[in-house]
Amino acid sequence: MAKKLTTRNEDYSKWYNELVIKADLAENSGIRGCMVIKPYGYAIWERMQAELDRMFKETGHQNAYFPIFIPKSYFSKEASHVSGFAKECAVVTHYRLKSDDDGSIVVDPTAKLEEELIVRPTSETVIWDTYRKWIQSYRDLPILINQWANVVRWEMRTRLFLRTSEFLWQEGHTAHATKEEAIKEAELMLNVYADFAQNFMAVPVIKGVKTESERFAGAVETYCIEALMQDGKALQAGTSHFLGQNFAKAFDVKFADKEGVLEYVWATSWGVSTRLIGALIMTHSDDNGLVLPPTLAPDQVVIVPIYRTDEERNAIGEVADKMIKQLRAEGIRVKYDERDTHKPGWKFNEYELKGVPVRIAIGPKDLEKGTVEIARRDTLQKQFINQNETVSVVTKLLDEIQENIFKKAKNYRDSHITEVDTYEEFKEVLETKGGFVSAHWDGTTATEELIQNETKATIRCIPLDGNQEKGKCIVTGAISSKRVLFAKAY
Amino acid sequence: MAKKLTTRNEDYSKWYNELVIKADLAENSGIRGCMVIKPYGYAIWERMQAELDRMFKETGHQNAYFPIFIPKSYFSKEASHVSGFAKECAVVTHYRLKSDDDGSIVVDPTAKLEEELIVRPTSETVIWDTYRKWIQSYRDLPILINQWANVVRWEMRTRLFLRTSEFLWQEGHTAHATKEEAIKEAELMLNVYADFAQNFMAVPVIKGVKTESERFAGAVETYCIEALMQDGKALQAGTSHFLGQNFAKAFDVKFADKEGVLEYVWATSWGVSTRLIGALIMTHSDDNGLVLPPTLAPDQVVIVPIYRTDEERNAIGEVADKMIKQLRAEGIRVKYDERDTHKPGWKFNEYELKGVPVRIAIGPKDLEKGTVEIARRDTLQKQFINQNETVSVVTKLLDEIQENIFKKAKNYRDSHITEVDTYEEFKEVLETKGGFVSAHWDGTTATEELIQNETKATIRCIPLDGNQEKGKCIVTGAISSKRVLFAKAY
Repeated sequence: MAKKLTTRNEDYSKWYNELVIKADLAENSGIRGCMVIKPYGYAIWERMQAELDRMFKETGHQNAYFPIFIPKSYFSKEASHVSGFAKECAVVTHYRLKSDDDGSIVVDPTAKLEEELIVRPTSETVIWDTYRKWIQSYRDLPILINQWANVVRWEMRTRLFLRTSEFLWQEGHTAHATKEEAIKEAELMLNVYADFAQNFMAVPVIKGVKTESERFAGAVETYCIEALMQDGKALQAGTSHFLGQNFAKAFDVKFADKEGVLEYVWATSWGVSTRLIGALIMTHSDDNGLVLPPTLAPDQVVIVPIYRTDEERNAIGEVADKMIKQLRAEGIRVKYDERDTHKPGWKFNEYELKGVPVRIAIGPKDLEKGTVEIARRDTLQKQFINQNETVSVVTKLLDEIQENIFKKAKNYRDSHITEVDTYEEFKEVLETKGGFVSAHWDGTTATEELIQNETKATIRCIPLDGNQEKGKCIVTGAISSKRVLFAKAY
Repeated sequence: MAKKLTTRNEDYSKWYNELVIKADLAENSGIRGCMVIKPYGYAIWERMQAELDRMFKETGHQNAYFPIFIPKSYFSKEASHVSGFAKECAVVTHYRLKSDDDGSIVVDPTAKLEEELIVRPTSETVIWDTYRKWIQSYRDLPILINQWANVVRWEMRTRLFLRTSEFLWQEGHTAHATKEEAIKEAELMLNVYADFAQNFMAVPVIKGVKTESERFAGAVETYCIEALMQDGKALQAGTSHFLGQNFAKAFDVKFADKEGVLEYVWATSWGVSTRLIGALIMTHSDDNGLVLPPTLAPDQVVIVPIYRTDEERNAIGEVADKMIKQLRAEGIRVKYDERDTHKPGWKFNEYELKGVPVRIAIGPKDLEKGTVEIARRDTLQKQFINQNETVSVVTKLLDEIQENIFKKAKNYRDSHITEVDTYEEFKEVLETKGGFVSAHWDGTTATEELIQNETKATIRCIPLDGNQEKGKCIVTGAISSKRVLFAKAY
């Protein structure tokens, strides 16, 4: 049996890295900062994609595909956008290799591009250059498009799923005739993300807006959902940007309104990425391995036969076959593991490590009694049930697990939002308890930076549903009308 | 109404380019050779992906994701591979931009990569570098993995879908313990592709193997499916490669067999791309626009109401609503177009252009009589039917259209395979009739090149089901045991 995981208490960061590797989710590649997403990890991403894609289409969006390369000149058109991304760009400068005199392969210096191409870190620029050709009048609006794609941001310090130089994501890019409609769209997609995080990932999130310094490069307002990991650090799980007319102005995209007056188009963009898999892992998993929400688990149920003889194996196989058919008829994803290369105990550990929500074991005694042993991954509780109850018990259990892990995460999160009224208290809570610290702030970037420099905490968001409450900034004492949420963050 | 398409007879190439643009499938971007796939074109790709993905999974494959960047040194390890791709590589040399003294954005010369990265043109090298870590013993085999991804091949002459610098595709990469198993896999996937082409795309294909000069760079054998377009030119629609141990040797991937003996692993790779959309268009479409097979059409049925008054509109809306529910209950994709910005005649043309298989029109007279007018896109035939027959008629019609366009394409293809026994005849058929020319060839690359230089025809494949037949090479007169298929090709 494989060595046990480092525990979360021993070293949270090491626990995470080990878990990602041992559960076969992903690994580092030979290319700096780029990961290989292995089949088990990719299967989780596929389930996330399927749910999100359905939600996008139900809210009227269509998919399309735009080029991976962005000419440097496009990139430079929106000033704050380029300054936000310039430091982490992969740049294509040549389009050919050749054999050198000594037979080694070198870049052909005669094949230099006239204009360098950036591997997209995000696609606002190339998309708005395209939208200019698509938009003439109000009849062409709104444009509601999403793209599933890979993007590259050259990161110096990378971690599997959480921060990688290449990652997979979706990016929505919409165009509207009015400011109000664009804001409504940005808020709608924030709600879609929150719905997905809570109801599919079972990850509780706080909806809010970013401060100016944390805003997307080129946005007027960045909406976000913020989650809390088990080590008390926050993780931004999705963002939805109201871009105002910034990109329309940079790319000269105007439309004729009903009166024939030319106006700049209003924009949004919104995205979530494979980073969500990191959030999923760190929200639910424990020292035995992954804990996956049933909605997203590639296998929801695994059946492990326990046998000594071929006769037992066959008899158990028959019971299992029937059970698998019944479960699949209910749309439940079941795996039957009858490999004889591994012992049942090894398999139990393996499926705990991989976070399969429900495990069913069938042994010779179960055949006699007409029972099976059923174990749930979240609580590790086991019970014996009658074989003919299997479908109803499993169905109920999957719902219960989904609900239970959400509740558990929400309890943890809720108990880690601490209101403080002094900077001393603020620092103490951050260092001892962690989590979100809810405090008054004077609204200035200067104070925000001071706090970040002194404590490493950033303002995760100004909560959308936060109460209006008069107070004084914990640092400067200046008047504040609302608490904001600080945390150390991934 | 938009200007009519150029006809296929007038200028086939122009007809194709116009159709892709006017039917809203794709357009050229501002980035050389890279296309924007518009929502309607992407919806066709999504349907292709869904069917192929299901077929891959049913044959035991899992999806994963590997980095987009390939270090130059990886790329150089397999000699024939690098020579095949070196001339069309996008090369990343830097990882940062900066502001110049005059404020313009330039590549930061201090951020030069130690080793250049190639934007993947195909992923054998990065995947086999990874497989080395995954494979120790026969127990780790087979590995059956597919990846959906974008790839870049720097093309000098590009055409939407058919040849673009960036395209979307899937690439399967499998690893096996024996040569026989790997060959079986390569053949299995060729059959999956042929099945998909014929039963979903309604495109008849010929299965064969490539000659040495047309083989994939690094393959021992390249299997292919070849289709014939309406202008008599062939199009390679998919390839499946038996790679032997070439990549295992280049990347030192060995496994211990049951006796503990170390052996190199056997490999396959196989792929189809957005090029298939080009094949789909050029196989079925006509001078009025696209003709889509019902299986892949984003909308299978469009319902167009014809009304003057709001009262009529409402009454027709009620009939349509009921019809839409019934059709959707049968899994049929229906669109209702009640836009009052366009007249019915304009809409009819629009849906003909977009290739919607079945169009239903409902006017005031239909309300009186309880009828609807139903038109099929492939033959443009119309008929009136009773409203309550709609579901059964549409269901039958969709099957008929699928079958009919396949038959039509197959008839055209079959009547454009011409056996010739002299080089004179060969050249004449190529110039006048086009299509596949079936001829004896002496098996040498020299003859193949001579024919290509003189006629622009290449050997599309050595058909798998071709009869053994003794004959003489049309050029050299040397003995040949089998005819091969020549054609001019895309």
